[in-house]
Amino acid sequence: MTYCLAIKVKDGLVAISDTCITAGSSISIKKKVHVEQYDKHSMFIMTSGLRSVRDKAINYFQELTEINKTYNKLYKAVNAFGEQIKRVAVEDKNFLLNAGLKFNLNTIIGGQLKDDDEHKLFLIYSEGNWVELDEGSPYVIIGNSGQGKAILNRILNPNTRMKQALKAGFLSFDSTRVSSNNVDFPIDVVLYKKDSFQMFEKRYEQKDLAAISDLWAAKLKNALDEIPEDWIDKTFDKLEEKLDNPPAPSN
Amino acid sequence: MTYCLAIKVKDGLVAISDTCITAGSSISIKKKVHVEQYDKHSMFIMTSGLRSVRDKAINYFQELTEINKTYNKLYKAVNAFGEQIKRVAVEDKNFLLNAGLKFNLNTIIGGQLKDDDEHKLFLIYSEGNWVELDEGSPYVIIGNSGQGKAILNRILNPNTRMKQALKAGFLSFDSTRVSSNNVDFPIDVVLYKKDSFQMFEKRYEQKDLAAISDLWAAKLKNALDEIPEDWIDKTFDKLEEKLDNPPAPSN
Repeated sequence: MTYCLAIKVKDGLVAISDTCITAGSSISIKKKVHVEQYDKHSMFIMTSGLRSVRDKAINYFQELTEINKTYNKLYKAVNAFGEQIKRVAVEDKNFLLNAGLKFNLNTIIGGQLKDDDEHKLFLIYSEGNWVELDEGSPYVIIGNSGQGKAILNRILNPNTRMKQALKAGFLSFDSTRVSSNNVDFPIDVVLYKKDSFQMFEKRYEQKDLAAISDLWAAKLKNALDEIPEDWIDKTFDKLEEKLDNPPAPSN
Repeated sequence: MTYCLAIKVKDGLVAISDTCITAGSSISIKKKVHVEQYDKHSMFIMTSGLRSVRDKAINYFQELTEINKTYNKLYKAVNAFGEQIKRVAVEDKNFLLNAGLKFNLNTIIGGQLKDDDEHKLFLIYSEGNWVELDEGSPYVIIGNSGQGKAILNRILNPNTRMKQALKAGFLSFDSTRVSSNNVDFPIDVVLYKKDSFQMFEKRYEQKDLAAISDLWAAKLKNALDEIPEDWIDKTFDKLEEKLDNPPAPSN
Protein backbone atom coordinates (compact mmCIF):
# COMPACT_ATOMS: atom_id res chain seq x y z
CA MET A 1 0.00 0.00 0.00
CA THR A 2 0.95 3.61 -0.28
CA TYR A 3 0.42 6.81 1.64
CA CYS A 4 0.46 9.92 -0.53
CA LEU A 5 -1.10 13.10 0.83
CA ALA A 6 -1.34 16.52 -0.80
CA ILE A 7 -2.74 19.61 0.90
CA LYS A 8 -3.71 22.90 -0.71
CA VAL A 9 -3.75 25.96 1.52
CA LYS A 10 -3.88 29.64 0.58
CA ASP A 11 -0.12 30.14 0.51
CA GLY A 12 0.89 26.91 -1.18
CA LEU A 13 0.99 23.15 -1.50
CA VAL A 14 2.34 20.54 0.89
CA ALA A 15 2.77 16.95 -0.28
CA ILE A 16 4.03 13.88 1.57
CA SER A 17 4.61 10.42 0.15
CA ASP A 18 5.97 7.26 1.67
CA THR A 19 8.42 5.11 -0.27
CA CYS A 20 7.34 1.59 0.60
CA ILE A 21 6.80 -0.75 -2.35
CA THR A 22 5.37 -4.21 -1.73
CA ALA A 23 5.43 -7.02 -4.28
CA GLY A 24 4.04 -10.19 -2.76
CA SER A 25 5.83 -10.55 0.55
CA SER A 26 8.86 -8.45 -0.41
CA ILE A 27 9.34 -4.79 0.43
CA SER A 28 11.53 -2.25 -1.30
CA ILE A 29 11.97 1.51 -1.26
CA LYS A 30 11.17 3.59 -4.32
CA LYS A 31 10.38 7.20 -4.78
CA LYS A 32 6.69 7.74 -5.46
CA VAL A 33 6.84 11.43 -6.24
CA HIS A 34 8.08 12.74 -9.57
CA VAL A 35 8.87 16.47 -9.81
CA GLU A 36 9.05 18.48 -13.04
CA GLN A 37 10.72 21.83 -12.64
CA TYR A 38 11.35 24.04 -15.66
CA ASP A 39 11.08 27.76 -16.04
CA LYS A 40 7.52 28.73 -14.91
CA HIS A 41 6.61 25.05 -14.87
CA SER A 42 6.44 23.51 -11.39
CA MET A 43 4.55 20.29 -10.87
CA PHE A 44 4.69 17.03 -8.92
CA ILE A 45 3.08 13.68 -9.67
CA MET A 46 2.42 11.16 -6.89
CA THR A 47 0.86 7.74 -7.50
CA SER A 48 -0.61 4.76 -5.70
CA GLY A 49 -1.50 1.44 -7.28
CA LEU A 50 0.38 -0.89 -9.59
CA ARG A 51 3.96 0.30 -9.92
CA SER A 52 4.22 -1.08 -13.47
CA VAL A 53 1.26 1.03 -14.58
CA ARG A 54 2.82 4.04 -12.89
CA ASP A 55 6.26 3.60 -14.42
CA LYS A 56 4.86 3.26 -17.94
CA ALA A 57 2.46 6.20 -17.58
CA ILE A 58 5.22 8.43 -16.14
CA ASN A 59 7.63 7.48 -18.96
CA TYR A 60 5.00 8.13 -21.63
CA PHE A 61 4.21 11.45 -19.99
CA GLN A 62 7.88 12.49 -19.73
CA GLU A 63 8.37 11.67 -23.40
CA LEU A 64 5.39 13.84 -24.29
CA THR A 65 6.72 16.68 -22.15
CA GLU A 66 10.18 16.49 -23.71
CA ILE A 67 8.68 16.94 -27.15
CA ASN A 68 6.10 19.41 -26.07
CA LYS A 69 7.00 21.75 -23.20
CA THR A 70 4.04 23.93 -23.98
CA TYR A 71 1.47 23.20 -21.28
CA ASN A 72 0.54 26.63 -20.00
CA LYS A 73 -1.97 25.49 -17.37
CA LEU A 74 -1.74 22.58 -14.99
CA TYR A 75 -5.13 21.09 -15.95
CA LYS A 76 -3.76 20.55 -19.47
CA ALA A 77 -0.83 18.55 -18.12
CA VAL A 78 -3.31 16.65 -15.92
CA ASN A 79 -5.41 15.89 -19.00
CA ALA A 80 -2.31 14.66 -20.81
CA PHE A 81 -1.32 12.42 -17.89
CA GLY A 82 -4.87 11.02 -17.81
CA GLU A 83 -4.52 10.17 -21.51
CA GLN A 84 -1.30 8.26 -20.78
CA ILE A 85 -3.11 6.22 -18.11
CA LYS A 86 -5.78 5.36 -20.71
CA ARG A 87 -3.01 4.39 -23.16
CA VAL A 88 -1.48 2.03 -20.59
CA ALA A 89 -4.97 0.63 -19.90
CA VAL A 90 -5.46 -0.17 -23.59
CA GLU A 91 -2.10 -1.92 -23.66
CA ASP A 92 -2.08 -3.78 -20.34
CA LYS A 93 -5.47 -3.83 -18.60
CA ASN A 94 -6.82 -7.11 -20.02
CA PHE A 95 -3.53 -8.91 -19.47
CA LEU A 96 -3.52 -7.76 -15.85
CA LEU A 97 -7.17 -8.74 -15.36
CA ASN A 98 -6.45 -12.19 -16.80
CA ALA A 99 -3.75 -12.57 -14.16
CA GLY A 100 -6.19 -11.59 -11.43
CA LEU A 101 -4.76 -8.07 -11.00
CA LYS A 102 -6.90 -4.98 -10.98
CA PHE A 103 -5.78 -2.15 -13.25
CA ASN A 104 -5.26 0.38 -10.55
CA LEU A 105 -3.56 3.77 -10.46
CA ASN A 106 -4.54 6.83 -8.49
CA THR A 107 -2.54 9.97 -9.11
CA ILE A 108 -2.21 13.32 -7.40
CA ILE A 109 -0.82 16.17 -9.47
CA GLY A 110 -0.11 19.54 -7.92
CA GLY A 111 1.73 22.67 -8.95
CA GLN A 112 1.49 25.84 -10.98
CA LEU A 113 2.28 26.47 -14.66
CA LYS A 114 2.87 29.85 -16.20
CA ASP A 115 -0.76 30.83 -16.95
CA ASP A 116 -2.26 29.42 -13.72
CA ASP A 117 -3.45 32.25 -11.49
CA GLU A 118 -2.51 30.17 -8.46
CA HIS A 119 -1.26 26.74 -7.35
CA LYS A 120 -3.60 23.85 -8.20
CA LEU A 121 -4.24 20.33 -6.98
CA PHE A 122 -5.84 17.43 -8.90
CA LEU A 123 -6.78 13.82 -8.25
CA ILE A 124 -6.73 11.54 -11.30
CA TYR A 125 -8.51 8.18 -11.19
CA SER A 126 -7.52 4.84 -12.79
CA GLU A 127 -9.93 5.62 -15.65
CA GLY A 128 -8.01 8.80 -16.53
CA ASN A 129 -10.76 11.18 -15.41
CA TRP A 130 -10.01 13.70 -12.69
CA VAL A 131 -11.31 16.18 -10.12
CA GLU A 132 -9.80 19.38 -8.78
CA LEU A 133 -9.25 19.81 -5.05
CA ASP A 134 -10.01 23.18 -3.57
CA GLU A 135 -11.23 25.05 -0.51
CA GLY A 136 -14.11 22.72 0.46
CA SER A 137 -11.81 19.68 0.25
CA PRO A 138 -8.33 21.08 0.89
CA TYR A 139 -6.52 17.73 0.87
CA VAL A 140 -6.45 14.33 -0.79
CA ILE A 141 -4.90 11.02 0.25
CA ILE A 142 -4.32 8.11 -2.11
CA GLY A 143 -3.41 4.58 -1.09
CA ASN A 144 -4.05 3.87 2.56
CA SER A 145 -6.45 6.75 2.95
CA GLY A 146 -8.56 5.85 5.95
CA GLN A 147 -6.41 6.14 9.01
CA GLY A 148 -4.90 9.56 8.51
CA LYS A 149 -8.07 11.52 7.84
CA ALA A 150 -9.32 12.17 11.36
CA ILE A 151 -6.46 14.48 12.32
CA LEU A 152 -6.55 16.34 8.99
CA ASN A 153 -10.32 16.87 9.18
CA ARG A 154 -9.92 18.44 12.58
CA ILE A 155 -6.96 20.68 11.77
CA LEU A 156 -6.98 21.78 8.15
CA ASN A 157 -8.81 24.66 6.62
CA PRO A 158 -7.90 26.88 3.66
CA ASN A 159 -6.25 29.40 5.99
CA THR A 160 -3.93 26.89 7.63
CA ARG A 161 -0.28 27.93 7.27
CA MET A 162 1.99 25.66 5.20
CA LYS A 163 4.04 24.79 8.30
CA GLN A 164 0.94 23.66 10.19
CA ALA A 165 -0.18 21.69 7.13
CA LEU A 166 3.17 19.86 7.05
CA LYS A 167 2.93 19.13 10.76
CA ALA A 168 -0.64 17.78 10.53
CA GLY A 169 0.35 15.89 7.39
CA PHE A 170 3.27 14.22 9.11
CA LEU A 171 1.12 13.19 12.08
CA SER A 172 -1.46 11.85 9.65
CA PHE A 173 1.26 9.79 7.95
CA ASP A 174 2.46 8.62 11.35
CA SER A 175 -1.04 7.50 12.38
CA THR A 176 -1.18 5.44 9.19
CA ARG A 177 2.30 4.03 9.68
CA VAL A 178 1.59 2.63 13.16
CA SER A 179 -1.44 0.73 11.76
CA SER A 180 0.04 -0.56 8.50
CA ASN A 181 2.80 -2.98 7.60
CA ASN A 182 3.14 -1.45 4.15
CA VAL A 183 3.44 2.29 4.79
CA ASP A 184 6.79 3.39 6.16
CA PHE A 185 9.73 5.79 6.21
CA PRO A 186 11.55 7.37 4.50
CA ILE A 187 9.04 9.99 3.41
CA ASP A 188 9.43 12.51 0.64
CA VAL A 189 8.08 15.98 1.27
CA VAL A 190 7.36 18.44 -1.53
CA LEU A 191 6.67 22.09 -0.78
CA TYR A 192 5.41 24.67 -3.24
CA LYS A 193 4.87 28.30 -2.33
CA LYS A 194 2.26 30.13 -4.39
CA ASP A 195 3.67 32.03 -7.39
CA SER A 196 7.27 30.96 -6.58
CA PHE A 197 7.62 28.57 -9.55
CA GLN A 198 10.13 26.58 -7.51
CA MET A 199 9.38 23.07 -6.26
CA PHE A 200 11.21 22.18 -3.06
CA GLU A 201 11.94 18.55 -2.13
CA LYS A 202 13.12 17.07 1.18
CA ARG A 203 13.43 13.46 2.37
CA TYR A 204 12.95 12.55 6.03
CA GLU A 205 14.29 9.29 7.44
CA GLN A 206 12.69 7.55 10.43
CA LYS A 207 15.51 8.66 12.77
CA ASP A 208 14.89 12.31 11.82
CA LEU A 209 11.35 12.18 13.18
CA ALA A 210 11.35 9.35 15.75
CA ALA A 211 11.30 11.82 18.64
CA ILE A 212 8.28 13.62 17.14
CA SER A 213 6.43 10.29 16.68
CA ASP A 214 7.10 9.31 20.28
CA LEU A 215 6.09 12.72 21.60
CA TRP A 216 2.84 12.62 19.62
CA ALA A 217 1.99 9.15 20.99
CA ALA A 218 2.69 10.43 24.53
CA LYS A 219 0.57 13.56 23.98
CA LEU A 220 -2.32 11.48 22.65
CA LYS A 221 -2.16 9.30 25.76
CA ASN A 222 -2.10 12.38 27.99
CA ALA A 223 -5.02 13.90 26.11
CA LEU A 224 -6.94 10.66 26.58
CA ASP A 225 -6.14 10.62 30.28
CA GLU A 226 -7.39 14.19 30.59
CA ILE A 227 -10.80 13.44 29.04
CA PRO A 228 -13.34 13.43 31.90
CA GLU A 229 -14.63 10.03 32.95
CA ASP A 230 -17.91 10.88 34.72
CA TRP A 231 -20.02 9.57 31.80
CA ILE A 232 -18.04 6.31 31.95
CA ASP A 233 -18.20 6.09 35.74
CA LYS A 234 -22.00 6.47 35.67
CA THR A 235 -22.32 3.62 33.19
CA PHE A 236 -19.97 1.38 35.15
CA ASP A 237 -21.85 2.19 38.38
CA LYS A 238 -25.02 0.91 36.73
CA LEU A 239 -23.16 -2.17 35.53
CA GLU A 240 -21.96 -2.89 39.09
CA GLU A 241 -25.48 -2.29 40.42
CA LYS A 242 -26.83 -4.86 37.96
CA LEU A 243 -24.13 -7.35 38.88
CA ASP A 244 -24.93 -6.89 42.59
CA ASN A 245 -28.62 -7.51 41.92
CA PRO A 246 -28.76 -10.03 39.09
CA PRO A 247 -32.17 -10.85 37.62
CA ALA A 248 -33.60 -14.24 38.52
CA PRO A 249 -32.30 -16.89 36.12
CA SER A 250 -34.68 -17.86 33.33
CA ASN A 251 -35.49 -21.51 32.76
CA MET B 1 -21.35 1.85 6.34
CA THR B 2 -21.07 0.68 9.89
CA TYR B 3 -18.76 1.10 12.83
CA CYS B 4 -18.74 -1.88 15.20
CA LEU B 5 -15.83 -2.28 17.58
CA ALA B 6 -15.21 -4.95 20.20
CA ILE B 7 -12.30 -4.97 22.62
CA LYS B 8 -11.12 -7.83 24.80
CA VAL B 9 -9.15 -6.93 27.90
CA LYS B 10 -8.26 -9.06 30.91
CA ASP B 11 -11.28 -8.07 32.98
CA GLY B 12 -13.90 -8.16 30.27
CA LEU B 13 -15.33 -7.10 26.91
CA VAL B 14 -16.29 -3.65 25.64
CA ALA B 15 -18.31 -3.32 22.44
CA ILE B 16 -19.56 -0.23 20.62
CA SER B 17 -21.78 -0.11 17.57
CA ASP B 18 -23.27 2.77 15.64
CA THR B 19 -26.88 2.57 14.45
CA CYS B 20 -26.73 4.22 11.06
CA ILE B 21 -28.33 2.24 8.21
CA THR B 22 -27.98 3.50 4.66
CA ALA B 23 -30.06 2.23 1.73
CA GLY B 24 -29.23 4.22 -1.39
CA SER B 25 -29.46 7.84 -0.30
CA SER B 26 -31.72 7.24 2.68
CA ILE B 27 -30.56 6.88 6.26
CA SER B 28 -32.33 5.19 9.13
CA ILE B 29 -31.48 4.08 12.64
CA LYS B 30 -31.45 0.41 13.55
CA LYS B 31 -29.83 -1.49 16.33
CA LYS B 32 -26.82 -3.47 15.07
CA VAL B 33 -26.10 -5.37 18.23
CA HIS B 34 -28.16 -8.36 19.32
CA VAL B 35 -27.74 -9.60 22.89
CA GLU B 36 -28.63 -13.08 24.16
CA GLN B 37 -28.76 -13.32 27.90
CA TYR B 38 -29.91 -16.54 29.57
CA ASP B 39 -28.66 -18.26 32.67
CA LYS B 40 -24.86 -18.76 32.19
CA HIS B 41 -25.23 -17.76 28.54
CA SER B 42 -24.08 -14.20 27.77
CA MET B 43 -23.32 -13.25 24.19
CA PHE B 44 -23.64 -10.37 21.76
CA ILE B 45 -23.71 -10.40 17.96
CA MET B 46 -22.75 -7.27 15.96
CA THR B 47 -22.80 -7.14 12.15
CA SER B 48 -21.76 -4.99 9.22
CA GLY B 49 -22.76 -5.56 5.62
CA LEU B 50 -26.09 -6.19 3.95
CA ARG B 51 -28.86 -5.73 6.49
CA SER B 52 -31.05 -8.30 4.74
CA VAL B 53 -28.36 -10.97 5.12
CA ARG B 54 -27.96 -10.02 8.77
CA ASP B 55 -31.67 -10.10 9.57
CA LYS B 56 -32.12 -13.54 8.03
CA ALA B 57 -29.01 -15.00 9.65
CA ILE B 58 -29.99 -13.61 13.06
CA ASN B 59 -33.55 -14.98 12.75
CA TYR B 60 -32.28 -18.42 11.71
CA PHE B 61 -29.83 -18.37 14.59
CA GLN B 62 -32.47 -17.31 17.13
CA GLU B 63 -34.75 -20.10 15.96
CA LEU B 64 -31.93 -22.60 16.41
CA THR B 65 -31.20 -21.25 19.88
CA GLU B 66 -34.85 -21.45 20.92
CA ILE B 67 -34.97 -25.13 20.02
CA ASN B 68 -31.51 -25.89 21.29
CA LYS B 69 -30.28 -23.86 24.26
CA THR B 70 -27.40 -26.24 24.77
CA TYR B 71 -24.30 -24.42 23.54
CA ASN B 72 -21.86 -24.76 26.39
CA LYS B 73 -18.97 -22.86 24.75
CA LEU B 74 -19.06 -19.67 22.74
CA TYR B 75 -17.13 -21.11 19.79
CA LYS B 76 -19.98 -23.59 19.24
CA ALA B 77 -22.50 -20.76 19.00
CA VAL B 78 -20.08 -18.97 16.65
CA ASN B 79 -19.88 -22.10 14.50
CA ALA B 80 -23.68 -22.28 14.42
CA PHE B 81 -23.95 -18.62 13.42
CA GLY B 82 -21.39 -19.20 10.66
CA GLU B 83 -23.57 -22.07 9.39
CA GLN B 84 -26.57 -19.73 9.23
CA ILE B 85 -24.56 -17.24 7.13
CA LYS B 86 -23.71 -20.12 4.75
CA ARG B 87 -27.41 -21.07 4.64
CA VAL B 88 -28.36 -17.49 3.70
CA ALA B 89 -25.58 -17.52 1.07
CA VAL B 90 -27.03 -20.67 -0.52
CA GLU B 91 -30.47 -19.06 -0.61
CA ASP B 92 -29.64 -15.49 -1.65
CA LYS B 93 -26.05 -15.02 -2.85
CA ASN B 94 -26.60 -15.59 -6.58
CA PHE B 95 -29.72 -13.42 -6.63
CA LEU B 96 -27.76 -10.62 -4.96
CA LEU B 97 -24.80 -11.03 -7.33
CA ASN B 98 -27.18 -10.88 -10.31
CA ALA B 99 -28.41 -7.56 -8.99
CA GLY B 100 -24.84 -6.27 -8.67
CA LEU B 101 -24.72 -6.64 -4.88
CA LYS B 102 -21.91 -8.37 -3.07
CA PHE B 103 -22.92 -10.98 -0.48
CA ASN B 104 -21.38 -9.30 2.46
CA LEU B 105 -21.65 -9.82 6.19
CA ASN B 106 -18.98 -9.45 8.83
CA THR B 107 -19.92 -10.42 12.35
CA ILE B 108 -18.38 -9.96 15.77
CA ILE B 109 -19.52 -12.33 18.50
CA GLY B 110 -18.37 -11.86 22.06
CA GLY B 111 -19.33 -13.26 25.43
CA GLN B 112 -19.00 -16.22 27.75
CA LEU B 113 -21.06 -19.43 27.97
CA LYS B 114 -21.14 -21.79 30.93
CA ASP B 115 -18.11 -23.95 30.09
CA ASP B 116 -15.90 -21.10 28.79
CA ASP B 117 -13.04 -20.48 31.19
CA GLU B 118 -13.16 -16.78 30.32
CA HIS B 119 -14.84 -14.23 28.02
CA LYS B 120 -14.16 -14.73 24.30
CA LEU B 121 -14.23 -12.66 21.14
CA PHE B 122 -14.65 -13.87 17.55
CA LEU B 123 -14.73 -12.35 14.06
CA ILE B 124 -16.86 -14.26 11.52
CA TYR B 125 -16.38 -13.57 7.79
CA SER B 126 -18.97 -13.53 5.00
CA GLU B 127 -17.95 -17.10 4.11
CA GLY B 128 -18.92 -18.34 7.59
CA ASN B 129 -15.34 -19.06 8.71
CA TRP B 130 -13.98 -17.29 11.76
CA VAL B 131 -10.97 -16.26 13.84
CA GLU B 132 -10.64 -15.71 17.58
CA LEU B 133 -9.34 -12.38 18.89
CA ASP B 134 -6.95 -12.50 21.79
CA GLU B 135 -3.99 -10.82 23.46
CA GLY B 136 -1.94 -10.08 20.35
CA SER B 137 -4.95 -8.51 18.63
CA PRO B 138 -7.12 -7.30 21.48
CA TYR B 139 -9.75 -5.58 19.32
CA VAL B 140 -11.62 -5.84 16.06
CA ILE B 141 -13.54 -3.29 13.99
CA ILE B 142 -15.98 -4.20 11.24
CA GLY B 143 -17.44 -1.78 8.70
CA ASN B 144 -15.54 1.48 8.48
CA SER B 145 -12.44 0.06 10.06
CA GLY B 146 -9.63 2.34 8.93
CA GLN B 147 -10.02 5.65 10.67
CA GLY B 148 -10.44 4.50 14.24
CA LYS B 149 -7.41 2.22 14.47
CA ALA B 150 -4.63 4.71 15.16
CA ILE B 151 -5.88 5.68 18.60
CA LEU B 152 -6.63 2.07 19.58
CA ASN B 153 -3.21 0.83 18.46
CA ARG B 154 -1.57 3.43 20.64
CA ILE B 155 -3.69 2.90 23.76
CA LEU B 156 -4.90 -0.68 24.04
CA ASN B 157 -3.08 -3.61 25.51
CA PRO B 158 -4.43 -6.69 27.32
CA ASN B 159 -3.99 -4.97 30.69
CA THR B 160 -6.05 -1.90 29.78
CA ARG B 161 -8.94 -1.40 32.20
CA MET B 162 -12.47 -1.71 30.79
CA LYS B 163 -13.13 1.98 31.49
CA GLN B 164 -10.05 3.03 29.49
CA ALA B 165 -11.09 0.65 26.71
CA LEU B 166 -14.53 2.28 26.54
CA LYS B 167 -12.97 5.75 26.47
CA ALA B 168 -10.48 4.85 23.71
CA GLY B 169 -13.29 3.04 21.88
CA PHE B 170 -15.54 6.09 21.99
CA LEU B 171 -12.76 8.35 20.70
CA SER B 172 -12.06 5.83 17.96
CA PHE B 173 -15.76 5.92 16.98
CA ASP B 174 -15.69 9.71 17.12
CA SER B 175 -12.65 9.88 14.80
CA THR B 176 -14.57 7.73 12.34
CA ARG B 177 -17.77 9.76 12.69
CA VAL B 178 -16.10 13.09 11.78
CA SER B 179 -14.79 11.55 8.54
CA SER B 180 -17.87 9.58 7.44
CA ASN B 181 -21.37 10.49 6.35
CA ASN B 182 -22.66 7.02 7.22
CA VAL B 183 -21.40 6.41 10.74
CA ASP B 184 -23.28 8.30 13.42
CA PHE B 185 -24.95 8.47 16.80
CA PRO B 186 -26.71 7.03 18.68
CA ILE B 187 -24.23 4.36 19.71
CA ASP B 188 -24.95 1.16 21.59
CA VAL B 189 -22.42 0.09 24.17
CA VAL B 190 -22.24 -3.46 25.51
CA LEU B 191 -20.14 -4.28 28.56
CA TYR B 192 -19.33 -7.74 29.86
CA LYS B 193 -17.31 -8.35 32.98
CA LYS B 194 -15.40 -11.65 33.08
CA ASP B 195 -17.31 -14.49 34.82
CA SER B 196 -20.31 -12.24 35.59
CA PHE B 197 -22.66 -13.91 33.08
CA GLN B 198 -24.53 -10.63 32.78
CA MET B 199 -24.47 -8.55 29.60
CA PHE B 200 -24.93 -4.83 30.19
CA GLU B 201 -26.31 -2.53 27.47
CA LYS B 202 -26.36 1.26 27.32
CA ARG B 203 -27.27 3.66 24.48
CA TYR B 204 -25.54 7.06 24.14
CA GLU B 205 -27.13 9.86 22.11
CA GLN B 206 -25.05 12.57 20.44
CA LYS B 207 -26.03 15.16 23.07
CA ASP B 208 -24.76 12.86 25.85
CA LEU B 209 -21.23 12.98 24.45
CA ALA B 210 -21.03 16.21 22.42
CA ALA B 211 -18.94 17.90 25.12
CA ILE B 212 -16.47 14.98 25.12
CA SER B 213 -16.18 15.11 21.30
CA ASP B 214 -15.50 18.86 21.41
CA LEU B 215 -12.99 18.52 24.21
CA TRP B 216 -11.13 15.76 22.34
CA ALA B 217 -10.93 17.91 19.19
CA ALA B 218 -9.57 20.80 21.28
CA LYS B 219 -7.04 18.57 23.02
CA LEU B 220 -5.83 17.19 19.68
CA LYS B 221 -5.33 20.72 18.43
CA ASN B 222 -3.44 21.66 21.58
CA ALA B 223 -1.28 18.54 21.31
CA LEU B 224 -0.49 19.46 17.72
CA ASP B 225 0.42 23.00 18.74
CA GLU B 226 2.75 21.63 21.40
CA ILE B 227 4.71 19.43 18.97
CA PRO B 228 8.08 21.14 18.39
CA GLU B 229 8.54 22.83 15.04
CA ASP B 230 12.32 23.04 14.69
CA TRP B 231 12.41 20.25 12.09
CA ILE B 232 9.75 22.14 10.10
CA ASP B 233 11.48 25.50 10.54
CA LYS B 234 14.75 24.08 9.21
CA THR B 235 13.04 22.75 6.10
CA PHE B 236 11.19 26.01 5.50
CA ASP B 237 14.41 27.98 6.00
CA LYS B 238 15.97 25.94 3.20
CA LEU B 239 12.89 26.54 1.07
CA GLU B 240 13.19 30.31 1.61
CA GLU B 241 16.91 30.15 0.86
CA LYS B 242 16.19 28.43 -2.43
CA LEU B 243 13.49 30.97 -3.31
CA ASP B 244 15.91 33.82 -2.55
CA ASN B 245 18.53 32.23 -4.82
CA PRO B 246 16.60 30.58 -7.64
CA PRO B 247 18.58 28.45 -10.10
CA ALA B 248 19.10 29.98 -13.53
CA PRO B 249 16.10 29.22 -15.75
CA SER B 250 16.60 26.36 -18.20
CA ASN B 251 15.89 26.83 -21.85
